Amino acid sequence: MVERRRITGFSNPTVKFMRALREKKHRRRERRFLAEGLRLLTDARENGQFPELLAMATGREPHPLLDALEDAVLAAGGEVVEMEPDILAKVTGKDNPQSVAGVFLEPATELDAIAREAAPIWLVAQALRDPGNLGTMLRTGDAVGAGGLILIDDCADPFSVEAVRASMGAIFTQRIATARWEEFLPWLRQGPGQLVAASLRDPTDYRTADYEAPCFLMVGNESQGLPEAYEAACDLRVRIPMLGRADSLNAAIAGAVLAYAALAKMPTS
Amino acid sequence: MVERRRITGFSNPTVKFMRALREKKHRRRERRFLAEGLRLLTDARENGQFPELLAMATGREPHPLLDALEDAVLAAGGEVVEMEPDILAKVTGKDNPQSVAGVFLEPATELDAIAREAAPIWLVAQALRDPGNLGTMLRTGDAVGAGGLILIDDCADPFSVEAVRASMGAIFTQRIATARWEEFLPWLRQGPGQLVAASLRDPTDYRTADYEAPCFLMVGNESQGLPEAYEAACDLRVRIPMLGRADSLNAAIAGAVLAYAALAKMPTS
Repeated sequence: MVERRRITGFSNPTVKFMRALREKKHRRRERRFLAEGLRLLTDARENGQFPELLAMATGREPHPLLDALEDAVLAAGGEVVEMEPDILAKVTGKDNPQSVAGVFLEPATELDAIAREAAPIWLVAQALRDPGNLGTMLRTGDAVGAGGLILIDDCADPFSVEAVRASMGAIFTQRIATARWEEFLPWLRQGPGQLVAASLRDPTDYRTADYEAPCFLMVGNESQGLPEAYEAACDLRVRIPMLGRADSLNAAIAGAVLAYAALAKMPTS
Repeated sequence: MVERRRITGFSNPTVKFMRALREKKHRRRERRFLAEGLRLLTDARENGQFPELLAMATGREPHPLLDALEDAVLAAGGEVVEMEPDILAKVTGKDNPQSVAGVFLEPATELDAIAREAAPIWLVAQALRDPGNLGTMLRTGDAVGAGGLILIDDCADPFSVEAVRASMGAIFTQRIATARWEEFLPWLRQGPGQLVAASLRDPTDYRTADYEAPCFLMVGNESQGLPEAYEAACDLRVRIPMLGRADSLNAAIAGAVLAYAALAKMPTS
Protein backbone atom coordinates (compact mmCIF):
# COMPACT_ATOMS: atom_id res chain seq x y z
CA MET A 1 0.00 0.00 0.00
CA VAL A 2 1.52 3.28 -1.11
CA GLU A 3 1.42 6.18 1.33
CA ARG A 4 -0.59 9.10 0.02
CA ARG A 5 -0.02 12.75 0.73
CA ARG A 6 -2.56 13.69 3.38
CA ILE A 7 -4.04 17.17 3.52
CA THR A 8 -5.27 18.33 6.89
CA GLY A 9 -5.71 22.09 6.56
CA PHE A 10 -8.31 24.19 4.80
CA SER A 11 -5.62 26.66 3.78
CA ASN A 12 -3.54 24.06 1.99
CA PRO A 13 -2.66 25.28 -1.55
CA THR A 14 -4.09 22.13 -3.16
CA VAL A 15 -7.42 22.72 -1.42
CA LYS A 16 -7.41 26.35 -2.52
CA PHE A 17 -6.52 25.35 -6.08
CA MET A 18 -9.35 22.82 -6.29
CA ARG A 19 -11.89 25.12 -4.70
CA ALA A 20 -10.96 27.90 -7.11
CA LEU A 21 -11.92 25.63 -10.01
CA ARG A 22 -15.54 26.08 -8.96
CA GLU A 23 -15.25 29.56 -10.50
CA LYS A 24 -15.19 30.15 -14.21
CA LYS A 25 -12.35 32.66 -14.21
CA HIS A 26 -10.05 30.21 -12.49
CA ARG A 27 -11.08 27.40 -14.81
CA ARG A 28 -10.27 29.61 -17.79
CA ARG A 29 -6.89 30.58 -16.38
CA GLU A 30 -5.91 27.06 -15.35
CA ARG A 31 -7.59 25.29 -18.31
CA ARG A 32 -8.73 22.67 -15.84
CA PHE A 33 -12.05 21.57 -14.36
CA LEU A 34 -13.43 19.57 -11.44
CA ALA A 35 -15.46 16.39 -11.55
CA GLU A 36 -16.90 14.87 -8.42
CA GLY A 37 -18.18 11.51 -7.32
CA LEU A 38 -17.12 7.94 -7.90
CA ARG A 39 -19.61 7.34 -10.67
CA LEU A 40 -18.51 10.31 -12.75
CA LEU A 41 -14.81 9.60 -12.24
CA THR A 42 -15.38 5.97 -13.15
CA ASP A 43 -17.13 7.10 -16.34
CA ALA A 44 -14.04 9.16 -17.11
CA ARG A 45 -11.68 6.27 -16.38
CA GLU A 46 -13.66 3.86 -18.53
CA ASN A 47 -13.40 6.40 -21.32
CA GLY A 48 -9.62 6.57 -20.89
CA GLN A 49 -9.58 9.94 -19.17
CA PHE A 50 -7.80 10.35 -15.87
CA PRO A 51 -7.57 13.28 -13.49
CA GLU A 52 -4.18 14.90 -12.97
CA LEU A 53 -5.07 15.13 -9.32
CA LEU A 54 -7.41 12.84 -7.41
CA ALA A 55 -8.61 13.73 -3.91
CA MET A 56 -10.17 11.06 -1.72
CA ALA A 57 -11.75 11.38 1.72
CA THR A 58 -9.99 9.82 4.67
CA GLY A 59 -12.12 7.24 6.46
CA ARG A 60 -13.95 6.37 3.23
CA GLU A 61 -15.53 2.98 2.73
CA PRO A 62 -13.29 0.77 0.60
CA HIS A 63 -14.66 0.21 -2.90
CA PRO A 64 -13.17 -1.73 -5.81
CA LEU A 65 -14.00 1.14 -8.19
CA LEU A 66 -12.08 3.53 -5.94
CA ASP A 67 -9.09 1.19 -6.04
CA ALA A 68 -9.33 0.94 -9.81
CA LEU A 69 -9.52 4.71 -10.06
CA GLU A 70 -6.53 5.26 -7.81
CA ASP A 71 -4.46 2.73 -9.73
CA ALA A 72 -5.39 4.27 -13.06
CA VAL A 73 -4.52 7.79 -11.93
CA LEU A 74 -1.13 6.72 -10.61
CA ALA A 75 -0.41 4.66 -13.72
CA ALA A 76 -1.19 7.73 -15.84
CA GLY A 77 1.29 9.79 -13.82
CA GLY A 78 -1.29 11.68 -11.77
CA GLU A 79 -1.22 12.49 -8.08
CA VAL A 80 -3.52 11.06 -5.40
CA VAL A 81 -4.12 12.91 -2.15
CA GLU A 82 -6.28 12.29 0.90
CA MET A 83 -8.33 14.92 2.69
CA GLU A 84 -10.49 14.96 5.78
CA PRO A 85 -14.15 14.64 4.70
CA ASP A 86 -14.94 18.20 5.84
CA ILE A 87 -12.10 19.57 3.71
CA LEU A 88 -13.21 17.58 0.68
CA ALA A 89 -16.75 18.85 1.28
CA LYS A 90 -15.37 22.37 1.07
CA VAL A 91 -13.80 21.53 -2.29
CA THR A 92 -16.96 19.98 -3.69
CA GLY A 93 -19.27 22.58 -2.14
CA LYS A 94 -21.64 19.85 -0.97
CA ASP A 95 -23.05 19.25 2.47
CA ASN A 96 -23.12 15.56 1.78
CA PRO A 97 -19.53 15.19 0.61
CA GLN A 98 -18.67 12.97 -2.30
CA SER A 99 -15.95 10.57 -1.37
CA VAL A 100 -13.80 11.62 -4.29
CA ALA A 101 -13.05 14.52 -6.65
CA GLY A 102 -10.66 14.94 -9.55
CA VAL A 103 -9.00 17.73 -11.51
CA PHE A 104 -9.04 17.26 -15.29
CA LEU A 105 -7.35 19.14 -18.11
CA GLU A 106 -9.91 20.88 -20.30
CA PRO A 107 -9.96 19.47 -23.83
CA ALA A 108 -9.51 21.73 -26.83
CA THR A 109 -12.75 23.47 -27.74
CA GLU A 110 -11.93 24.93 -31.15
CA LEU A 111 -14.21 24.12 -34.08
CA ASP A 112 -11.26 22.47 -35.78
CA ALA A 113 -11.35 19.82 -33.06
CA ILE A 114 -14.70 18.66 -34.50
CA ALA A 115 -14.41 15.78 -36.97
CA ARG A 116 -17.83 16.32 -38.47
CA GLU A 117 -17.98 13.03 -40.34
CA ALA A 118 -17.18 11.00 -37.25
CA ALA A 119 -20.82 11.10 -36.12
CA PRO A 120 -24.23 11.36 -37.81
CA ILE A 121 -25.57 13.92 -35.34
CA TRP A 122 -24.12 16.99 -33.66
CA LEU A 123 -26.02 19.16 -31.21
CA VAL A 124 -25.70 22.93 -31.40
CA ALA A 125 -26.87 25.31 -28.68
CA GLN A 126 -27.04 29.06 -29.03
CA ALA A 127 -26.71 31.30 -25.96
CA LEU A 128 -27.79 28.47 -23.68
CA ARG A 129 -27.56 29.94 -20.20
CA ASP A 130 -28.51 27.14 -17.85
CA PRO A 131 -25.65 24.77 -16.97
CA GLY A 132 -28.17 22.04 -16.12
CA ASN A 133 -29.69 22.29 -19.61
CA LEU A 134 -26.21 22.23 -21.10
CA GLY A 135 -25.19 19.11 -19.17
CA THR A 136 -28.50 17.47 -20.06
CA MET A 137 -27.83 18.14 -23.76
CA LEU A 138 -24.45 16.44 -23.44
CA ARG A 139 -26.14 13.46 -21.80
CA THR A 140 -28.75 13.30 -24.58
CA GLY A 141 -26.00 13.60 -27.19
CA ASP A 142 -24.27 10.57 -25.71
CA ALA A 143 -27.55 8.64 -25.83
CA VAL A 144 -28.27 9.34 -29.50
CA GLY A 145 -24.69 8.67 -30.58
CA ALA A 146 -23.98 12.31 -31.35
CA GLY A 147 -20.41 13.45 -31.76
CA GLY A 148 -20.66 16.41 -29.45
CA LEU A 149 -22.12 19.78 -28.61
CA ILE A 150 -21.22 23.05 -30.30
CA LEU A 151 -21.86 26.12 -28.18
CA ILE A 152 -22.66 29.25 -30.14
CA ASP A 153 -22.35 32.78 -28.74
CA ASP A 154 -22.47 33.25 -24.96
CA CYS A 155 -23.39 29.95 -23.36
CA ALA A 156 -23.01 28.61 -19.85
CA ASP A 157 -19.64 27.03 -19.16
CA PRO A 158 -19.72 23.32 -20.05
CA PHE A 159 -16.95 22.71 -17.52
CA SER A 160 -18.86 24.15 -14.56
CA VAL A 161 -19.50 21.70 -11.74
CA GLU A 162 -23.25 21.86 -12.46
CA ALA A 163 -22.92 21.11 -16.18
CA VAL A 164 -20.39 18.34 -15.57
CA ARG A 165 -22.73 16.78 -13.01
CA ALA A 166 -25.84 17.05 -15.23
CA SER A 167 -23.91 15.47 -18.12
CA MET A 168 -23.73 12.22 -16.12
CA GLY A 169 -20.37 11.41 -17.64
CA ALA A 170 -21.07 12.62 -21.16
CA ILE A 171 -18.62 15.48 -20.59
CA PHE A 172 -15.99 12.76 -21.13
CA THR A 173 -17.51 11.23 -24.26
CA GLN A 174 -18.88 14.21 -26.20
CA ARG A 175 -16.65 16.69 -28.05
CA ILE A 176 -17.31 20.27 -27.10
CA ALA A 177 -16.63 23.31 -29.23
CA THR A 178 -17.34 26.97 -28.59
CA ALA A 179 -17.63 29.58 -31.32
CA ARG A 180 -19.34 32.78 -32.33
CA TRP A 181 -22.05 32.40 -34.97
CA GLU A 182 -19.83 34.38 -37.37
CA GLU A 183 -17.19 31.68 -37.04
CA PHE A 184 -19.52 28.71 -36.90
CA LEU A 185 -21.48 29.29 -40.09
CA PRO A 186 -18.45 29.65 -42.41
CA TRP A 187 -16.85 26.62 -40.73
CA LEU A 188 -20.03 24.59 -41.29
CA ARG A 189 -20.19 25.59 -44.97
CA GLN A 190 -16.62 24.42 -45.59
CA GLY A 191 -17.81 20.81 -45.62
CA PRO A 192 -20.85 18.56 -45.49
CA GLY A 193 -23.37 19.39 -42.82
CA GLN A 194 -27.11 19.97 -42.64
CA LEU A 195 -28.11 22.71 -40.23
CA VAL A 196 -31.53 22.08 -38.67
CA ALA A 197 -33.71 23.98 -36.22
CA ALA A 198 -37.21 23.71 -34.86
CA SER A 199 -39.38 26.54 -36.10
CA LEU A 200 -42.95 27.70 -35.71
CA ARG A 201 -42.77 29.23 -39.19
CA ASP A 202 -42.36 26.01 -41.12
CA PRO A 203 -44.90 23.23 -41.70
CA THR A 204 -42.34 20.42 -42.19
CA ASP A 205 -43.18 17.63 -39.75
CA TYR A 206 -40.20 16.99 -37.48
CA ARG A 207 -40.85 13.23 -37.64
CA THR A 208 -40.80 12.80 -41.38
CA ALA A 209 -38.28 15.47 -42.36
CA ASP A 210 -35.23 14.47 -44.39
CA TYR A 211 -32.46 14.62 -41.85
CA GLU A 212 -29.05 13.95 -43.38
CA ALA A 213 -25.76 13.12 -41.72
CA PRO A 214 -23.80 14.94 -40.54
CA CYS A 215 -26.85 16.65 -39.12
CA PHE A 216 -26.37 19.71 -36.89
CA LEU A 217 -29.43 20.19 -34.67
CA MET A 218 -29.60 23.68 -33.23
CA VAL A 219 -31.60 25.03 -30.30
CA GLY A 220 -31.73 28.60 -29.05
CA ASN A 221 -31.55 30.54 -25.85
CA GLU A 222 -33.99 29.60 -23.06
CA SER A 223 -35.99 32.81 -23.16
CA GLN A 224 -35.31 34.30 -26.60
CA GLY A 225 -35.13 31.22 -28.79
CA LEU A 226 -32.99 31.40 -31.92
CA PRO A 227 -32.44 34.73 -33.66
CA GLU A 228 -34.42 34.88 -36.90
CA ALA A 229 -31.25 35.17 -38.98
CA TYR A 230 -29.93 31.94 -37.50
CA GLU A 231 -33.18 30.16 -38.26
CA ALA A 232 -33.10 31.54 -41.80
CA ALA A 233 -29.58 30.17 -42.31
CA CYS A 234 -30.74 26.62 -41.61
CA ASP A 235 -30.98 24.04 -44.37
CA LEU A 236 -34.06 22.53 -42.77
CA ARG A 237 -36.66 23.95 -40.41
CA VAL A 238 -39.06 21.52 -38.80
CA ARG A 239 -42.22 21.86 -36.78
CA ILE A 240 -42.61 20.13 -33.42
CA PRO A 241 -46.32 20.00 -32.45
CA MET A 242 -47.22 22.50 -29.74
CA LEU A 243 -50.79 21.69 -28.70
CA GLY A 244 -50.98 23.72 -25.52
CA ARG A 245 -50.91 27.38 -24.84
CA ALA A 246 -47.14 27.77 -24.76
CA ASP A 247 -45.18 28.22 -27.98
CA SER A 248 -41.93 26.56 -26.97
CA LEU A 249 -40.34 23.63 -25.20
CA ASN A 250 -37.46 23.72 -22.76
CA ALA A 251 -34.30 24.00 -24.89
CA ALA A 252 -32.84 20.66 -23.79
CA ILE A 253 -36.22 18.97 -24.39
CA ALA A 254 -36.50 20.46 -27.88
CA GLY A 255 -32.96 19.27 -28.65
CA ALA A 256 -33.78 15.76 -27.49
CA VAL A 257 -37.03 15.53 -29.46
CA LEU A 258 -35.18 16.64 -32.59
CA ALA A 259 -32.23 14.36 -31.90
CA TYR A 260 -34.39 11.24 -31.55
CA ALA A 261 -36.34 12.17 -34.68
CA ALA A 262 -33.10 12.63 -36.63
CA LEU A 263 -31.64 9.42 -35.22
CA ALA A 264 -34.61 7.47 -36.57
CA LYS A 265 -33.70 8.69 -40.07
CA MET A 266 -30.04 7.79 -39.88
CA PRO A 267 -28.79 4.70 -41.69
CA THR A 268 -27.14 3.44 -38.51
CA SER A 269 -30.35 3.36 -36.50
CA MET B 1 -57.25 55.39 -10.71
CA VAL B 2 -57.89 53.40 -7.56
CA GLU B 3 -55.51 53.90 -4.64
CA ARG B 4 -53.65 50.72 -3.78
CA ARG B 5 -52.45 49.69 -0.37
CA ARG B 6 -48.73 50.47 -0.30
CA ILE B 7 -46.35 48.37 1.76
CA THR B 8 -43.17 50.09 2.89
CA GLY B 9 -41.73 47.81 5.57
CA PHE B 10 -39.96 44.48 5.39
CA SER B 11 -41.73 43.38 8.56
CA ASN B 12 -45.19 43.94 7.13
CA PRO B 13 -47.37 40.84 7.66
CA THR B 14 -48.21 40.58 3.94
CA VAL B 15 -44.50 40.53 3.09
CA LYS B 16 -43.87 37.87 5.72
CA PHE B 17 -46.83 35.83 4.48
CA MET B 18 -45.64 35.93 0.86
CA ARG B 19 -42.03 35.18 1.76
CA ALA B 20 -43.10 32.22 3.86
CA LEU B 21 -44.71 30.68 0.76
CA ARG B 22 -41.22 30.06 -0.56
CA GLU B 23 -41.08 27.22 1.98
CA LYS B 24 -42.94 23.98 1.52
CA LYS B 25 -44.26 23.70 5.08
CA HIS B 26 -45.92 27.09 4.81
CA ARG B 27 -47.36 26.28 1.40
CA ARG B 28 -48.83 23.08 2.83
CA ARG B 29 -50.33 24.90 5.77
CA GLU B 30 -51.74 27.78 3.77
CA ARG B 31 -52.65 25.70 0.68
CA ARG B 32 -51.32 28.58 -1.39
CA PHE B 33 -48.36 29.18 -3.68
CA LEU B 34 -46.39 32.00 -5.26
CA ALA B 35 -45.98 32.78 -8.94
CA GLU B 36 -43.71 35.54 -10.14
CA GLY B 37 -43.29 37.63 -13.22
CA LEU B 38 -45.63 39.29 -15.66
CA ARG B 39 -45.41 36.51 -18.22
CA LEU B 40 -46.36 33.77 -15.78
CA LEU B 41 -49.18 35.80 -14.22
CA THR B 42 -50.47 36.65 -17.66
CA ASP B 43 -50.47 32.94 -18.53
CA ALA B 44 -52.57 32.37 -15.40
CA ARG B 45 -54.97 35.18 -16.26
CA GLU B 46 -55.44 33.98 -19.83
CA ASN B 47 -56.27 30.59 -18.37
CA GLY B 48 -58.90 32.14 -16.09
CA GLN B 49 -56.84 31.88 -12.91
CA PHE B 50 -56.29 34.93 -10.78
CA PRO B 51 -54.16 35.47 -7.69
CA GLU B 52 -55.92 36.24 -4.43
CA LEU B 53 -53.19 38.76 -3.78
CA LEU B 54 -51.15 40.61 -6.38
CA ALA B 55 -48.02 42.56 -5.41
CA MET B 56 -46.56 45.08 -7.82
CA ALA B 57 -43.37 47.11 -7.53
CA THR B 58 -43.66 50.85 -7.08
CA GLY B 59 -41.95 52.83 -9.81
CA ARG B 60 -42.57 50.03 -12.33
CA GLU B 61 -42.81 50.76 -16.02
CA PRO B 62 -46.45 50.91 -17.15
CA HIS B 63 -47.48 47.92 -19.25
CA PRO B 64 -50.88 47.06 -20.76
CA LEU B 65 -50.54 43.46 -19.51
CA LEU B 66 -49.97 44.75 -15.98
CA ASP B 67 -53.12 46.85 -16.27
CA ALA B 68 -55.08 43.87 -17.57
CA LEU B 69 -53.76 41.75 -14.72
CA GLU B 70 -54.66 44.31 -12.09
CA ASP B 71 -58.15 44.74 -13.50
CA ALA B 72 -58.70 40.99 -13.62
CA VAL B 73 -57.55 40.47 -10.03
CA LEU B 74 -59.81 43.22 -8.73
CA ALA B 75 -62.76 41.98 -10.79
CA ALA B 76 -62.27 38.52 -9.30
CA GLY B 77 -62.35 39.96 -5.78
CA GLY B 78 -58.61 39.79 -5.14
CA GLU B 79 -56.39 42.36 -3.51
CA VAL B 80 -53.66 44.43 -5.18
CA VAL B 81 -50.80 45.91 -3.18
CA GLU B 82 -47.72 47.91 -4.06
CA MET B 83 -44.26 47.34 -2.58
CA GLU B 84 -40.92 49.06 -2.91
CA PRO B 85 -38.80 47.08 -5.43
CA ASP B 86 -36.36 45.96 -2.71
CA ILE B 87 -39.23 44.57 -0.63
CA LEU B 88 -40.70 42.75 -3.60
CA ALA B 89 -37.21 41.38 -4.33
CA LYS B 90 -37.17 39.96 -0.84
CA VAL B 91 -40.49 38.23 -1.54
CA THR B 92 -39.34 36.81 -4.86
CA GLY B 93 -35.85 35.96 -3.63
CA LYS B 94 -34.31 37.41 -6.78
CA ASP B 95 -31.58 39.98 -7.12
CA ASN B 96 -33.16 41.19 -10.30
CA PRO B 97 -36.67 41.67 -8.99
CA GLN B 98 -39.67 40.75 -11.04
CA SER B 99 -42.08 43.62 -11.25
CA VAL B 100 -44.97 41.50 -10.00
CA ALA B 101 -45.82 38.45 -7.88
CA GLY B 102 -49.08 36.75 -7.00
CA VAL B 103 -50.46 34.39 -4.37
CA PHE B 104 -52.65 31.57 -5.75
CA LEU B 105 -54.81 28.98 -4.06
CA GLU B 106 -53.45 25.49 -4.63
CA PRO B 107 -55.80 23.33 -6.70
CA ALA B 108 -56.99 19.97 -5.42
CA THR B 109 -54.39 17.26 -6.03
CA GLU B 110 -56.35 14.11 -5.30
CA LEU B 111 -56.47 11.40 -7.96
CA ASP B 112 -60.22 11.85 -8.12
CA ALA B 113 -59.59 15.29 -9.57
CA ILE B 114 -58.18 13.57 -12.69
CA ALA B 115 -60.73 13.14 -15.48
CA ARG B 116 -58.73 10.49 -17.30
CA GLU B 117 -60.76 10.56 -20.49
CA ALA B 118 -60.39 14.30 -20.87
CA ALA B 119 -56.95 13.90 -22.46
CA PRO B 120 -55.14 11.26 -24.54
CA ILE B 121 -51.89 11.52 -22.58
CA TRP B 122 -51.05 11.85 -18.89
CA LEU B 123 -47.54 12.09 -17.54
CA VAL B 124 -46.59 10.19 -14.41
CA ALA B 125 -43.40 10.78 -12.41
CA GLN B 126 -42.19 8.60 -9.59
CA ALA B 127 -40.01 10.07 -6.82
CA LEU B 128 -38.93 12.91 -9.07
CA ARG B 129 -36.72 15.07 -6.86
CA ASP B 130 -35.67 17.98 -8.99
CA PRO B 131 -38.21 20.84 -9.13
CA GLY B 132 -36.75 22.00 -12.44
CA ASN B 133 -37.37 18.57 -13.97
CA LEU B 134 -40.87 18.60 -12.55
CA GLY B 135 -41.67 22.01 -13.97
CA THR B 136 -40.18 20.99 -17.32
CA MET B 137 -42.45 17.93 -17.39
CA LEU B 138 -45.48 20.18 -16.84
CA ARG B 139 -44.29 22.37 -19.71
CA THR B 140 -43.85 19.34 -21.97
CA GLY B 141 -47.27 18.04 -20.93
CA ASP B 142 -48.84 21.30 -22.03
CA ALA B 143 -47.05 21.06 -25.38
CA VAL B 144 -48.25 17.52 -26.16
CA GLY B 145 -51.81 18.21 -25.06
CA ALA B 146 -51.51 16.06 -21.95
CA GLY B 147 -54.10 16.39 -19.22
CA GLY B 148 -51.64 16.69 -16.40
CA LEU B 149 -48.92 15.20 -14.26
CA ILE B 150 -49.41 12.54 -11.60
CA LEU B 151 -46.72 12.51 -8.93
CA ILE B 152 -46.09 9.11 -7.37
CA ASP B 153 -44.36 8.61 -4.01
CA ASP B 154 -42.07 11.36 -2.70
CA CYS B 155 -41.64 13.95 -5.42
CA ALA B 156 -40.47 17.55 -5.38
CA ASP B 157 -43.25 20.02 -4.64
CA PRO B 158 -44.94 21.11 -7.89
CA PHE B 159 -45.90 24.39 -6.22
CA SER B 160 -42.35 25.39 -5.33
CA VAL B 161 -41.17 28.63 -6.89
CA GLU B 162 -38.61 26.68 -8.98
CA ALA B 163 -41.13 24.20 -10.37
CA VAL B 164 -43.70 26.92 -11.07
CA ARG B 165 -41.05 28.93 -12.91
CA ALA B 166 -39.77 25.97 -14.95
CA SER B 167 -43.36 25.09 -15.93
CA MET B 168 -43.51 28.35 -17.91
CA GLY B 169 -47.21 28.70 -17.14
CA ALA B 170 -48.15 25.03 -17.48
CA ILE B 171 -48.75 24.93 -13.72
CA PHE B 172 -51.99 26.73 -14.62
CA THR B 173 -53.05 24.46 -17.48
CA GLN B 174 -52.01 20.97 -16.35
CA ARG B 175 -53.88 19.02 -13.65
CA ILE B 176 -51.64 17.81 -10.88
CA ALA B 177 -52.27 14.83 -8.63
CA THR B 178 -50.14 13.30 -5.92
CA ALA B 179 -50.48 9.72 -4.70
CA ARG B 180 -48.60 6.76 -3.32
CA TRP B 181 -48.08 3.90 -5.77
CA GLU B 182 -50.41 1.76 -3.63
CA GLU B 183 -53.19 4.28 -4.28
CA PHE B 184 -52.34 5.06 -7.87
CA LEU B 185 -52.36 1.55 -9.31
CA PRO B 186 -55.84 0.55 -7.99
CA TRP B 187 -57.18 3.93 -9.11
CA LEU B 188 -55.73 3.39 -12.59
CA ARG B 189 -57.26 -0.09 -12.84
CA GLN B 190 -60.72 1.23 -12.02
CA GLY B 191 -61.07 2.56 -15.55
CA PRO B 192 -59.44 2.72 -18.96
CA GLY B 193 -55.77 3.60 -18.97
CA GLN B 194 -52.58 2.18 -20.49
CA LEU B 195 -49.57 2.41 -18.19
CA VAL B 196 -46.32 2.80 -20.13
CA ALA B 197 -42.66 3.07 -19.15
CA ALA B 198 -39.33 3.09 -20.89
CA SER B 199 -37.37 -0.03 -20.12
CA LEU B 200 -34.02 -1.53 -21.01
CA ARG B 201 -35.52 -5.00 -20.61
CA ASP B 202 -37.97 -4.82 -23.46
CA PRO B 203 -37.29 -4.76 -27.20
CA THR B 204 -40.48 -2.90 -28.21
CA ASP B 205 -39.47 0.14 -30.25
CA TYR B 206 -40.76 3.30 -28.56
CA ARG B 207 -41.62 4.80 -31.96
CA THR B 208 -43.83 2.02 -33.28
CA ALA B 209 -45.39 0.78 -30.03
CA ASP B 210 -49.18 0.70 -29.71
CA TYR B 211 -49.88 3.60 -27.44
CA GLU B 212 -53.57 3.90 -26.54
CA ALA B 213 -55.49 6.76 -24.99
CA PRO B 214 -55.73 7.45 -22.15
CA CYS B 215 -52.02 6.71 -22.08
CA PHE B 216 -50.15 7.14 -18.78
CA LEU B 217 -46.42 7.65 -19.46
CA MET B 218 -44.33 7.02 -16.38
CA VAL B 219 -40.73 8.01 -15.61
CA GLY B 220 -38.74 7.20 -12.50
CA ASN B 221 -36.47 8.87 -10.00
CA GLU B 222 -33.42 10.74 -11.33
CA SER B 223 -30.85 8.38 -9.87
CA GLN B 224 -32.71 5.12 -9.23
CA GLY B 225 -35.08 4.95 -12.18
CA LEU B 226 -38.36 3.09 -11.70
CA PRO B 227 -38.59 0.25 -9.18
CA GLU B 228 -38.77 -3.09 -10.99
CA ALA B 229 -42.22 -3.82 -9.59
CA TYR B 230 -43.55 -0.58 -11.07
CA GLU B 231 -42.06 -1.43 -14.44
CA ALA B 232 -43.57 -4.91 -14.23
CA ALA B 233 -47.01 -3.45 -13.56
CA CYS B 234 -46.96 -1.53 -16.84
CA ASP B 235 -49.15 -2.53 -19.77
CA LEU B 236 -46.44 -1.56 -22.22
CA ARG B 237 -42.67 -1.27 -21.87
CA VAL B 238 -40.79 0.40 -24.68
CA ARG B 239 -37.16 0.77 -25.57
CA ILE B 240 -35.63 4.17 -26.29
CA PRO B 241 -32.30 3.75 -28.13
CA MET B 242 -29.27 4.37 -25.91
CA LEU B 243 -26.26 4.38 -28.21
CA GLY B 244 -23.68 5.85 -25.85
CA ARG B 245 -22.11 4.61 -22.70
CA ALA B 246 -24.84 5.77 -20.34
CA ASP B 247 -27.95 3.65 -19.77
CA SER B 248 -30.47 6.38 -19.07
CA LEU B 249 -31.73 9.78 -20.10
CA ASN B 250 -32.60 12.69 -17.84
CA ALA B 251 -36.09 11.93 -16.48
CA ALA B 252 -37.76 14.95 -18.08
CA ILE B 253 -36.06 14.14 -21.40
CA ALA B 254 -37.23 10.52 -21.28
CA GLY B 255 -40.76 11.69 -20.53
CA ALA B 256 -40.70 14.08 -23.48
CA VAL B 257 -39.35 11.51 -25.93
CA LEU B 258 -42.08 9.09 -24.86
CA ALA B 259 -44.76 11.77 -24.92
CA TYR B 260 -43.98 12.85 -28.47
CA ALA B 261 -43.86 9.22 -29.61
CA ALA B 262 -47.24 8.55 -28.00
CA LEU B 263 -48.70 11.75 -29.42
CA ALA B 264 -47.81 10.61 -32.93
CA LYS B 265 -49.99 7.53 -32.39
CA MET B 266 -53.02 9.39 -31.09
CA PRO B 267 -56.02 9.89 -33.36
CA THR B 268 -56.01 13.60 -32.63
CA SER B 269 -52.50 14.18 -33.91
